[in-house]
Amino acid sequence: MNDGSDDADSRDRLPLRTDLTPIVEAVAAADADAFVTVGDRFDDDLRYLTRFSGPDRAYALVIVPADDAGGRAVCCAPSLFREQAEREFVASARSRSADDGGFHDGVAREVRTERVGNHAGERAAAVIRDLLGGEDSEPTLLVPPSIPHDAAVYLERAGNALASTNAVARARARKTDAEIDRLRRVQCAAVAGMARAETMLAESEVVEVESVEDTDTERRPALRWEGAPLTTERLRRAVNATLADRGVRDAGDTAIGAGPSAADLHYVGDDPIRPGETVLIDISPRGPDGYRGDLTRTFVVDGDGGWERRAYLAVESAREAALAEIEPGVPTKTVHGEAAAELAAYGFDPNAGEGEAGFTHGAGHGVGVSLHESPSLSGAGELRPGHVVTVEPGVYDPDVGGVRLGDLVVVTEDGYEVLAEYPFGIVPNERE
Amino acid sequence: MNDGSDDADSRDRLPLRTDLTPIVEAVAAADADAFVTVGDRFDDDLRYLTRFSGPDRAYALVIVPADDAGGRAVCCAPSLFREQAEREFVASARSRSADDGGFHDGVAREVRTERVGNHAGERAAAVIRDLLGGEDSEPTLLVPPSIPHDAAVYLERAGNALASTNAVARARARKTDAEIDRLRRVQCAAVAGMARAETMLAESEVVEVESVEDTDTERRPALRWEGAPLTTERLRRAVNATLADRGVRDAGDTAIGAGPSAADLHYVGDDPIRPGETVLIDISPRGPDGYRGDLTRTFVVDGDGGWERRAYLAVESAREAALAEIEPGVPTKTVHGEAAAELAAYGFDPNAGEGEAGFTHGAGHGVGVSLHESPSLSGAGELRPGHVVTVEPGVYDPDVGGVRLGDLVVVTEDGYEVLAEYPFGIVPNERE
Repeated sequence: MNDGSDDADSRDRLPLRTDLTPIVEAVAAADADAFVTVGDRFDDDLRYLTRFSGPDRAYALVIVPADDAGGRAVCCAPSLFREQAEREFVASARSRSADDGGFHDGVAREVRTERVGNHAGERAAAVIRDLLGGEDSEPTLLVPPSIPHDAAVYLERAGNALASTNAVARARARKTDAEIDRLRRVQCAAVAGMARAETMLAESEVVEVESVEDTDTERRPALRWEGAPLTTERLRRAVNATLADRGVRDAGDTAIGAGPSAADLHYVGDDPIRPGETVLIDISPRGPDGYRGDLTRTFVVDGDGGWERRAYLAVESAREAALAEIEPGVPTKTVHGEAAAELAAYGFDPNAGEGEAGFTHGAGHGVGVSLHESPSLSGAGELRPGHVVTVEPGVYDPDVGGVRLGDLVVVTEDGYEVLAEYPFGIVPNERE
Repeated sequence: MNDGSDDADSRDRLPLRTDLTPIVEAVAAADADAFVTVGDRFDDDLRYLTRFSGPDRAYALVIVPADDAGGRAVCCAPSLFREQAEREFVASARSRSADDGGFHDGVAREVRTERVGNHAGERAAAVIRDLLGGEDSEPTLLVPPSIPHDAAVYLERAGNALASTNAVARARARKTDAEIDRLRRVQCAAVAGMARAETMLAESEVVEVESVEDTDTERRPALRWEGAPLTTERLRRAVNATLADRGVRDAGDTAIGAGPSAADLHYVGDDPIRPGETVLIDISPRGPDGYRGDLTRTFVVDGDGGWERRAYLAVESAREAALAEIEPGVPTKTVHGEAAAELAAYGFDPNAGEGEAGFTHGAGHGVGVSLHESPSLSGAGELRPGHVVTVEPGVYDPDVGGVRLGDLVVVTEDGYEVLAEYPFGIVPNERE
């Protein structure tokens, strides 16, 4: 197994650049004058377009096409961030060597930090006036739909008409080789985190401990590891420390449930872990360039072969059925449908509602700078080369537990490739 | 020193509740009909108002005042998040024991997961129609200024008039005892992270290594720790693993620079660490309830007592001058001004611009569920009891390095208290 120890390292990587051509083309196709977006460091569209990891307050990006081709892109950053913005937005987009594949989208990038008003929307409006030279009495600006309302109002008051565009979401869905490299490196760190958790489960011993149920105190078996009770919180801290050691962050998305809490898709509480229960571990870190990973496995220590083993077999089988469909041109819904049909064949409700027993979610989702992005395997559309999606069927019973197995796969020209493999098996093994 | 090992634990804490009374009162004061906001898990206003850690797609909160007092608050969540929203938004706001201080803001909370349209703005509009019972032909809704534009458009198209409010930002600025408890616990984890970094610096040895400057290869001294070169990235990984062990996340905000990169306020690159250079370590984790910490120290291994020692003395002195001003009623600008005057007395430019040598930023900022929130020590306003701010003067020289010393303090009735103390000293010591 790849231990991923250097995978989040920033050296010797394919350069990560964003080709702004699709945005320039969207402006031209809509007969608009410019593209504008405003947001903070948590805005993944901005992160994708600029590669600027940004401030936690609003900043703006303006893109204006040139008459012939290419154009100009201006990042309006707070002055305290000039150096960082120059490095991440401007310098990183320059061709550094012949190995770069001669990247050049013809868009000249610059950073401006002048204070023109107090709001990023006002600064964007000033840049638009400057770049368009006042040729148009009411310029039309393409904006992502969820741009902040105050920014939209500033732009409108400055005499611009707004039209919404999904060009950025479309551009993000198909990944370049450099993006796939980043996703794979982050997924390698998730693999290391999973190996830590699985090893701790394998090393645990079963002991009888005092347990209070309602008002009765009884002795119940529970797991113990290195001299203390093993809980979901203790496992999560160990996973997250392993991720940090690998240079990625857990991003608050390490969800670990045991028994009934394994049926809660986003459980982050602290439960004792008991033998016979499903322990569901979902690790979705974020790497230094913003790209995500997503890996899920489920284990049972000292299981008795009941519900959880049947569920595990069903989910393994659903996973294989889903993967068998993945290739360019296949409707995304087909992948979800195959997983659901397989779970139904094992007797699980493939359309369970919230709080019901069965398969309660979609079979997978796109992953990039956002943990959830296009395409969704339960939504409309077709798979294309460069799509990166999770394949993660699962079945749950709120009274018992949950089993989910999830991997990250990239759609290739003729099928798919799993990014950073992790072994399967309901019984935990030492993996480190 | 408090090692903070259990400080991020979720048990035995003051219950964390949000008193929605100020929002209800703002609606009444503006003669409006409801308050609405829309955002995702990264929206800190929503996190504060709901305590719901939320999905990474848009959800909505609607608050409608009752005729007498109190009101109703509806969280429109995706159905996959019903259980989590019920737990975090509804159950956590219930009074659990007599120790709670009888918390009751008279606002009845509920979660709705019906799909009414595809957008959280549409769902919010439907809830408003339902709660207001169509009594008003064009209800007025208070919204935070940066609500997503598409949500605002949905609300307007549904016949509502929007007016912006800063009631949430105002409510967030003054912290309750439970919030101060959370901030202190997270700051204790930052203390543990700093102790790890300082100890590694103290344990390092100075060795001569090959160094390439332009085209010349020469041997230059650098730090080595446990058999390998000590770099800013290696220190950062160790700090972040320590934070994860304590149950908090680094949130991508551990900035460590060495030498010239210490002058870059948000440096996250990988530099070798050399003797005589300033090593600036800024740790700003986020705890499980969303609250932040912020701790900064600067060290020099084998310094020669030049620029960096003068800078350290100046910054220590500026820190003391700033702290001496902190009490209720003092204008925030006074605190910044005192720090700046002290730095000027040591010969540093107190108003340095970007890329210049001197004091380039404000003396501090409010910290809560956001790392930067009200009040700013360089903005307008007065200190009030319950304000939690950083005090973090610093001086920089882009060619040499930077020194910053930063702590988190709460304004009390008659002064201030430092949340989780950490020792000072330019020479690193073993702290673990």
